[in-house]
Amino acid sequence: MNYEELSVKSREKNGGMIFTGLKAELQTKEDLSTYYSPGIAGPCREIDKDKKVAKKLTIKKNCIAVVSDGSAVLGLGNIGAEAALPVMEGKSMLFKQFGGVDAFPIVLDTQDTDEIVDAIVKISPTFGGINLEDISAPRCFEIEKKLAEKLDIPVFHDDQHGTAMVCLAALKNALKLVGKNKETAKIVISGAGAAGIAISEILKKWGAKNIDLIDSKGLVCCSRNDLNPAKKAHCSLNCGELKDAIKGADVFIGVSKAGLLKPELVKTMNENPIIFALANPTPEIMPEEARQAGAKIIATGRSDYPNQINNVLIFPGFFRGLLDAGITKVTMEMKIAAAEALADLVTEPTADYIIPSPLEAKVAPAIAEAVSSFGK
Amino acid sequence: MNYEELSVKSREKNGGMIFTGLKAELQTKEDLSTYYSPGIAGPCREIDKDKKVAKKLTIKKNCIAVVSDGSAVLGLGNIGAEAALPVMEGKSMLFKQFGGVDAFPIVLDTQDTDEIVDAIVKISPTFGGINLEDISAPRCFEIEKKLAEKLDIPVFHDDQHGTAMVCLAALKNALKLVGKNKETAKIVISGAGAAGIAISEILKKWGAKNIDLIDSKGLVCCSRNDLNPAKKAHCSLNCGELKDAIKGADVFIGVSKAGLLKPELVKTMNENPIIFALANPTPEIMPEEARQAGAKIIATGRSDYPNQINNVLIFPGFFRGLLDAGITKVTMEMKIAAAEALADLVTEPTADYIIPSPLEAKVAPAIAEAVSSFGK
Repeated sequence: MNYEELSVKSREKNGGMIFTGLKAELQTKEDLSTYYSPGIAGPCREIDKDKKVAKKLTIKKNCIAVVSDGSAVLGLGNIGAEAALPVMEGKSMLFKQFGGVDAFPIVLDTQDTDEIVDAIVKISPTFGGINLEDISAPRCFEIEKKLAEKLDIPVFHDDQHGTAMVCLAALKNALKLVGKNKETAKIVISGAGAAGIAISEILKKWGAKNIDLIDSKGLVCCSRNDLNPAKKAHCSLNCGELKDAIKGADVFIGVSKAGLLKPELVKTMNENPIIFALANPTPEIMPEEARQAGAKIIATGRSDYPNQINNVLIFPGFFRGLLDAGITKVTMEMKIAAAEALADLVTEPTADYIIPSPLEAKVAPAIAEAVSSFGK
Repeated sequence: MNYEELSVKSREKNGGMIFTGLKAELQTKEDLSTYYSPGIAGPCREIDKDKKVAKKLTIKKNCIAVVSDGSAVLGLGNIGAEAALPVMEGKSMLFKQFGGVDAFPIVLDTQDTDEIVDAIVKISPTFGGINLEDISAPRCFEIEKKLAEKLDIPVFHDDQHGTAMVCLAALKNALKLVGKNKETAKIVISGAGAAGIAISEILKKWGAKNIDLIDSKGLVCCSRNDLNPAKKAHCSLNCGELKDAIKGADVFIGVSKAGLLKPELVKTMNENPIIFALANPTPEIMPEEARQAGAKIIATGRSDYPNQINNVLIFPGFFRGLLDAGITKVTMEMKIAAAEALADLVTEPTADYIIPSPLEAKVAPAIAEAVSSFGK
């Protein structure tokens, strides 16, 4: 039985994979009087006096929403709310397992930007944070920005920032390993959706100076007149195709399409090329091919090859840190600090070990510490 | 320490009283591959083919939202979203404990009727049902009606129907005990908010023919021109005050205000009067006073007196039945059947035992069975 069949089987038995549980016994008349009427009026009154107390006395302390409109789900595309629900449940499982965060999946019956913002604002008093998930670009940029402005709880679009942070961590160790420098390395990012834009952004803020972004029409060059604002903000003076950009490049980061990077293109790169082929489930180039074509360090999104670039390395610990420190806004500084903390967990990088495995127990606490230091 | 202090203390230790848990182990690479990527694509594809499958493969199977705008919370009034959250958590605990229903609290940052409807519609693909809670009348009537029209999952406003059903169950046994008849008994309902209107409605559908409804301005008589549509639908030809209505009445049901029913008024009722004084925490008349004034059967909302009219007797089993049978619309027939099933659990009613205690284990399964029989 393959994993998809196993996943369906388990759900046929369990229904959803998330349940709600009680943090106290509810067996006696006294329990009922404490946890429901009349005792419940106590915490209600405390919060009525000062709203902020909700972060101490309610689920707002440790519970976030994992919200999607189902418009850009994994490799499946725009499958809508109901069909996206299993992914949001899976994500919620990972939040709890690795970060101890009570995460609850919410899928939305709309794909309109303003309606999504509005619905999330309306339910926000319930939660201590909002993790956006699988919302297509460029809407995801506007939704995240508007929510961050309107809400007093942290908002985080994992497809952008989770991916970007793990990429940064992996790239930091990879460059170290091949003795190259972030300021001078030539970096090509293939894919200008949520992840590509966010990777470009974090790498620039980190100090990378030579980045070319590529979308399905070629290099995102500033003279093109078909660019959305997010692409416009990351356009470069170079025009052309992937084959033009990749020539002499030190790093290829693909968040685009299966099979897009041909071995002959790898051969045109600078010496000791670094290839992150992150398209899922089939990468832009298979690791064996990339290696044969001369790639020095290879990472993918897959668990069956070394160097898995997996967001789970970031998001559970990141929200753990935000909640622990009562941080209300996510900043670029936090993201870079979390990425560097992740990189630093690998004290002696090798070509097959530039980032930790998602199952290493030290990961989430290290990320949480890096983030929560900003709230103190 | 009183119950309110105990409730606050427990929450200072626990944060919220509801957590989210995983229905499967997530320890190994294989677990990750099954419950997240790539296995998760399996259930997504199944639901993408047929949305209805979400009720089998996701939390939609057993999870409902307990939604409030915080406009009419217990005896506390309009305290807003955050301050209402503890009550929604408490309610969610009761749903799980007594009905095995995964309930998740959602409080809304709006008290506008259309915005509430809209927000709930937007998040509805996530849930298998919507329990509305502590939303003030008359908005609650419109909200419930609109949602029931728009959604393909059951919608239930517990403050209306939970209370109404328990009242009906208690009244059925009380009338039996004093040898009176539903068609001829004169019933006075004090309070024309969510609960009062719903009690009037269910009693009429059950067969009661002689009901007078009273609000803060006196009898809800049809010649008044200050009635909202819900009150209008339950107006009577009699005008006057409580003292006029109560004279010769067989039953007083109060869902109104502490101390409203004076002993001298009880003395003007018909013989063997039945008094349900349900204002919380202080009833319309204290049981001792009512007894002294001649009341034969007395029920309150309190756990420290016999005959507690407590919604928890209904809502966990009611939603258990709805979910088990895949019922998408709540009907009056279901409500009456559930109330009668509750009444029938008391095989030999006495003045101090006209309804079961909320802690009797047989209650929820009996209600669930009565409800789910409509789905077969």
